[in-house]
Amino acid sequence: MTQHGQDEHFPQPERRLRLGVVGGGQGSFIGKVHARGARLSNRWDVVAGALSSRPEVARASGREWLLAEDRIYSDYREMAEREAARADGIDAVAITTPNNSHHAIAVAFMEQGIDIISDKPLTTNLPDALDLVRRQQETGLVFGVTYAYAAYAMVRQAREMVRSGALGALQQVHVEYFQEWALTPPKDAGAGAQWRIDPAVVGPAFTTGDIGTHCHHLGAFVCGRPVTRLRAEFHTLGPDKPLEDTAFMHVRYEGDIPGTIMISQVAAGTHCGIRLRVFGEKASLEWNQEEPELLHFRPFAEPARILTRGEGSGIGIHAARFVHMPRGHPEALSDAWGNLYEELAIAIEARRAGRAIPEGLLEYPTVLDGALGVRFVEAAAASSKAGGVWLDCTLA
Amino acid sequence: MTQHGQDEHFPQPERRLRLGVVGGGQGSFIGKVHARGARLSNRWDVVAGALSSRPEVARASGREWLLAEDRIYSDYREMAEREAARADGIDAVAITTPNNSHHAIAVAFMEQGIDIISDKPLTTNLPDALDLVRRQQETGLVFGVTYAYAAYAMVRQAREMVRSGALGALQQVHVEYFQEWALTPPKDAGAGAQWRIDPAVVGPAFTTGDIGTHCHHLGAFVCGRPVTRLRAEFHTLGPDKPLEDTAFMHVRYEGDIPGTIMISQVAAGTHCGIRLRVFGEKASLEWNQEEPELLHFRPFAEPARILTRGEGSGIGIHAARFVHMPRGHPEALSDAWGNLYEELAIAIEARRAGRAIPEGLLEYPTVLDGALGVRFVEAAAASSKAGGVWLDCTLA
Amino acid sequence: MTQHGQDEHFPQPERRLRLGVVGGGQGSFIGKVHARGARLSNRWDVVAGALSSRPEVARASGREWLLAEDRIYSDYREMAEREAARADGIDAVAITTPNNSHHAIAVAFMEQGIDIISDKPLTTNLPDALDLVRRQQETGLVFGVTYAYAAYAMVRQAREMVRSGALGALQQVHVEYFQEWALTPPKDAGAGAQWRIDPAVVGPAFTTGDIGTHCHHLGAFVCGRPVTRLRAEFHTLGPDKPLEDTAFMHVRYEGDIPGTIMISQVAAGTHCGIRLRVFGEKASLEWNQEEPELLHFRPFAEPARILTRGEGSGIGIHAARFVHMPRGHPEALSDAWGNLYEELAIAIEARRAGRAIPEGLLEYPTVLDGALGVRFVEAAAASSKAGGVWLDCTLA
Amino acid sequence: MTQHGQDEHFPQPERRLRLGVVGGGQGSFIGKVHARGARLSNRWDVVAGALSSRPEVARASGREWLLAEDRIYSDYREMAEREAARADGIDAVAITTPNNSHHAIAVAFMEQGIDIISDKPLTTNLPDALDLVRRQQETGLVFGVTYAYAAYAMVRQAREMVRSGALGALQQVHVEYFQEWALTPPKDAGAGAQWRIDPAVVGPAFTTGDIGTHCHHLGAFVCGRPVTRLRAEFHTLGPDKPLEDTAFMHVRYEGDIPGTIMISQVAAGTHCGIRLRVFGEKASLEWNQEEPELLHFRPFAEPARILTRGEGSGIGIHAARFVHMPRGHPEALSDAWGNLYEELAIAIEARRAGRAIPEGLLEYPTVLDGALGVRFVEAAAASSKAGGVWLDCTLA
Repeated sequence: MTQHGQDEHFPQPERRLRLGVVGGGQGSFIGKVHARGARLSNRWDVVAGALSSRPEVARASGREWLLAEDRIYSDYREMAEREAARADGIDAVAITTPNNSHHAIAVAFMEQGIDIISDKPLTTNLPDALDLVRRQQETGLVFGVTYAYAAYAMVRQAREMVRSGALGALQQVHVEYFQEWALTPPKDAGAGAQWRIDPAVVGPAFTTGDIGTHCHHLGAFVCGRPVTRLRAEFHTLGPDKPLEDTAFMHVRYEGDIPGTIMISQVAAGTHCGIRLRVFGEKASLEWNQEEPELLHFRPFAEPARILTRGEGSGIGIHAARFVHMPRGHPEALSDAWGNLYEELAIAIEARRAGRAIPEGLLEYPTVLDGALGVRFVEAAAASSKAGGVWLDCTLA
Repeated sequence: MTQHGQDEHFPQPERRLRLGVVGGGQGSFIGKVHARGARLSNRWDVVAGALSSRPEVARASGREWLLAEDRIYSDYREMAEREAARADGIDAVAITTPNNSHHAIAVAFMEQGIDIISDKPLTTNLPDALDLVRRQQETGLVFGVTYAYAAYAMVRQAREMVRSGALGALQQVHVEYFQEWALTPPKDAGAGAQWRIDPAVVGPAFTTGDIGTHCHHLGAFVCGRPVTRLRAEFHTLGPDKPLEDTAFMHVRYEGDIPGTIMISQVAAGTHCGIRLRVFGEKASLEWNQEEPELLHFRPFAEPARILTRGEGSGIGIHAARFVHMPRGHPEALSDAWGNLYEELAIAIEARRAGRAIPEGLLEYPTVLDGALGVRFVEAAAASSKAGGVWLDCTLA
Repeated sequence: MTQHGQDEHFPQPERRLRLGVVGGGQGSFIGKVHARGARLSNRWDVVAGALSSRPEVARASGREWLLAEDRIYSDYREMAEREAARADGIDAVAITTPNNSHHAIAVAFMEQGIDIISDKPLTTNLPDALDLVRRQQETGLVFGVTYAYAAYAMVRQAREMVRSGALGALQQVHVEYFQEWALTPPKDAGAGAQWRIDPAVVGPAFTTGDIGTHCHHLGAFVCGRPVTRLRAEFHTLGPDKPLEDTAFMHVRYEGDIPGTIMISQVAAGTHCGIRLRVFGEKASLEWNQEEPELLHFRPFAEPARILTRGEGSGIGIHAARFVHMPRGHPEALSDAWGNLYEELAIAIEARRAGRAIPEGLLEYPTVLDGALGVRFVEAAAASSKAGGVWLDCTLA
Repeated sequence: MTQHGQDEHFPQPERRLRLGVVGGGQGSFIGKVHARGARLSNRWDVVAGALSSRPEVARASGREWLLAEDRIYSDYREMAEREAARADGIDAVAITTPNNSHHAIAVAFMEQGIDIISDKPLTTNLPDALDLVRRQQETGLVFGVTYAYAAYAMVRQAREMVRSGALGALQQVHVEYFQEWALTPPKDAGAGAQWRIDPAVVGPAFTTGDIGTHCHHLGAFVCGRPVTRLRAEFHTLGPDKPLEDTAFMHVRYEGDIPGTIMISQVAAGTHCGIRLRVFGEKASLEWNQEEPELLHFRPFAEPARILTRGEGSGIGIHAARFVHMPRGHPEALSDAWGNLYEELAIAIEARRAGRAIPEGLLEYPTVLDGALGVRFVEAAAASSKAGGVWLDCTLA
């Protein structure tokens, strides 16, 4: 994918796509990360934004982003309408606001025929999520959900190795994600910390929605099979708050493969080490975001191997499409977001051109993945409330 | 402890103690490890053994160990009697046989007034374990159980830091131990692999008894508080066998502190990385046996620190007693076993001399720790069988 | 620097600067890296390019980069003239061609009043380098040289810690950079590999110019003092070629501080691990590009500490200006290039606005650093030729 | 070697050998390490000692070691004579005193027909070293020199891989050893620190003799070829002292293979990380004592591999002889010393029994390796004094 025009499915684009962003103003974080990925991919210009619903913040933030004055909005509905009316209106919108607004914003832009790139978790309840699934199916719009870790080159390589049988039959899968930031009492933390623990904004879970959904998606993505059941135990171990800040879960992947998910945002001394371990009858894989270029492949009764991004490293074609720099020149999270925005651009261009993309060529997370994540959050919260009973978490 | 005679509680010994070993003959493993630890400590001579119940193996093994011909036995009862009758008879016996023989062997030697050093798990059922506890209390004999990982210098340091409050109030505790060796089909593996999966020899669990007990002890030892409850899920993921080879557990430590234990002996590409993570409100600790000299101390919102064994590393007095070589000269499992046998020698000398050792000065695992381990195994097996219900696992 | 307009020296920019690129067409590598950095910084639009001197490659590459047709050039002189004549002409040019063309290209654009961003080594001989220094001093143009490793947040942090005295008086400094790619015979490698070993293109050295200059700059940058003398030993250990592929050097930093530089591009199994170790009387620092987020600070006789980018990590203000994402969200080489292009944008905006930037606020490498690098290459080659004699390598 | 009696060359021993130790009393360090290795091997009883030349220290130390009263000496000459006269006299002596006494002590015991195990550096000048070589050749006594790092299982594995051609033709070899302890001013450090910097005791070098000799031996041992030439630069960077505490060297191994040796004992934050890197045309090896169980094998343009001690790890027969515990049960320096003392026991038993051991089966360092080390120290000191000229360092 790094070389545009390399084959019929990846024709040379004629122009950069135009991206609008909702959320991301001063004091927020993830909106900027979206914009960095879009820029890095060289497939997007960020041209419009409702970066905040407070007009003065929206204006100041828009100027900081170097948006044109007439494309700085504070009302996303107005933005959807006015952008749709412009000849040079946005092709897609990135939704980077608190969770409970995702649904309404997505609907507003979908109704204008604008493709959607939404942050996760997709919504705060399953009906909203399913509504977005239905709308996407009816409109045929592209709807990506930014589980960005799935766009690391070495995560793609891991998925390809599982699919190719390098591990043999899968036996167990463990995903963990520990952070420390929520040890800061909410009153001393920023606004971003406060809305994340407010049930009115995030629904039935804090940490499970915020980082548990990443674990849920990453395990399923690499294993190529969904989580079907779970039992969960929620804890509030850090400063007092109305929702959990820690959760331990037992899960089953399709085919009754057991696994665990362990998450906490009050784990002192930890930062962003989402870590995946997949064990098969012949070998295991380990990947940790804090060393994103390394994929540990450990065959039974043989020396361990360390695969890295780049030529001569034994990596497969899916990962190779994400190689921007030679082996050893370290890539990291910005590059992963760039990869994701590149894939989304390809999908959106193809849709606009009426071209079909063969199954499996693009692997960005979709609205369906987003809905599965919401289902996961709800099931986990319900299981914990019921004392840790096993609950189904499929969409069936 | 490295300097004998350093104070009143550690007087200069007048002689090496005499150790007998039951088990450990050709084809076995752990008996040799015991003997290496005893030798390394310079507090013991290994002088007698019933290294096998098969006379020819016992004889060949005894010669290999350079035992005197008249102190090579194949019947441990005969050994107990004859050694007790000698003026230069053994001071203690190391029991390194399969689990279901530990109780009878311990009883035989205790009845002769010989101190006991038993491998874990202590017994295959709780009544046997409690019987040993009772006998120890009645006789006052020293009864050590070789949870040797607790004798690593940096594990002692971890325990001391928890006790001193360096982590603040404890919040969560995770212990995992993954190995790969049981991926070899039992019929192709050695005898040591075969008895370990035989319920008649090991009781209700394979992996939970073999390595789960290590996790159970290590977490409780470092945290200074027992596991009070658990819920467990057993799996047999590798080659077919009558017992579990993998288990995931949720636990509670005294004070309702939550944690997890994850164990597997069919985890391809893993070896002996028992790993402990203790999180408190102020900081966390991490230790992994495969890097035994490093203790990671990670305060909230500060740089992580790496403590190492030796002077100038900020370690406390308990760990310092186990420093045999200057910082950076790597010590490992042999040294840990040496530490354990050194502590046991001190305890046995004190008992024989009628000296009391102040509370907390020695920290070797006792018969009570062994009984708690058996309780843990039984509770885990019962919980798993009942679908993962919470069960008490104290001795109360 | 991440927050535009944060103080008087970093006013909010009114527009993105316009960047032209010379070199970087299909088959080349570093030009794309420049462009990624420029885009990621959100301070630049890449609007023009002479990406190749071969018209058809220039055209195809320009389209791939999504340049406007009328701003795709194959002759850099034409580009300099036509861009200078446009109202919306480029503000700066990035020179990413083989070494022997840097001087002429820089002159052509400087003559049009266009600011310069040149790759390293600056030129293939000292007179050319000094000519550029003189021209820069005469014109006052911004002239940055892309020693991009100096723009990693943790390298800035290292420099700040040395300056603040955290290490005490410096005692020794070691820099190494090992790569493996030149083990591929030149005839089987790409064009980029072939010109790098051609004395007509690169001057008196291959590896010393290509990666030795990075070591030379990084050590001096972090220590805050130049290399004054060196003795070098060149080797050609890999496939036959007219220049060295390996060099070992002893150096002196200002103040007679000894150090070494070790470089090789035929070191099997190595990639991009440029590694710096600075030892002072009180502590040492270690940084390695393959783990760019970690700065190891190791005080004498205390636990080692690991500093990381982000809040709560004890990092200073210079590094903090380069923090784009919270601690633990890994940044890497793309982000470093983004940092460098951000600093260059600030410098160029200030020059254009006639604003003075206080000494020390910006730390991007300048034409003087570039000239020092050329001097270093020449001195190393001469020393090696003369059997390893000590030679001065200052510009005095 | 772990299984005695495994073949004709390793017959089952009939008894433990008897070891005497000179040096090692209270306040010293390395003598205790010798004794730990001897004990761990189960091939030796430590039965006699002149642990100090000060009678009261000798007596206290001897009791601490649990030596019999009549075998505690303060005069090594008396010890040599009286032990030689006993029916149960020592078989070998371990010389663990300051350097300048090694020669006289070795001579005293060789004259009594006692085998020698000497610490390094062998002597303080070449004539003394060559005298010991000559005496060994005349007497046929076993004379081991305790370069113990060469007895790590993974170092043996490295040597075997080089010999087998796994790296292809060797191209460059780098050994470094950094420690921090000599940052403590000598007056504040122990006696062991003071004699090491006294030219009257150690000859022309401090650090080069103390740890440089380890680097010199390790590189030559693994590469299977001697260092033939060197140029050295000595520095005294730490507290004032009459000898160097830091040295950088360029070397040549037989066949004109270039390399470097970098050593310092005033490198803040470092401990015992002697690190070896061997690069060949096809692959490289890296080993570091602070992770002694890991051997990094990195083929060109393939994933890196991590070999570990133990079955199923792809290790060869030489290393396998040193496997005492299953893969993953960490072994370290005590085990390496145990390995070395085991090999020495085999050699001494064979000599006493008149059995020849086939070439290459035992690989313990000999008096010739010791003499090469002394030559290395002298050549390095002379080269540095002469401004870094190249000097031969063979015994030819």
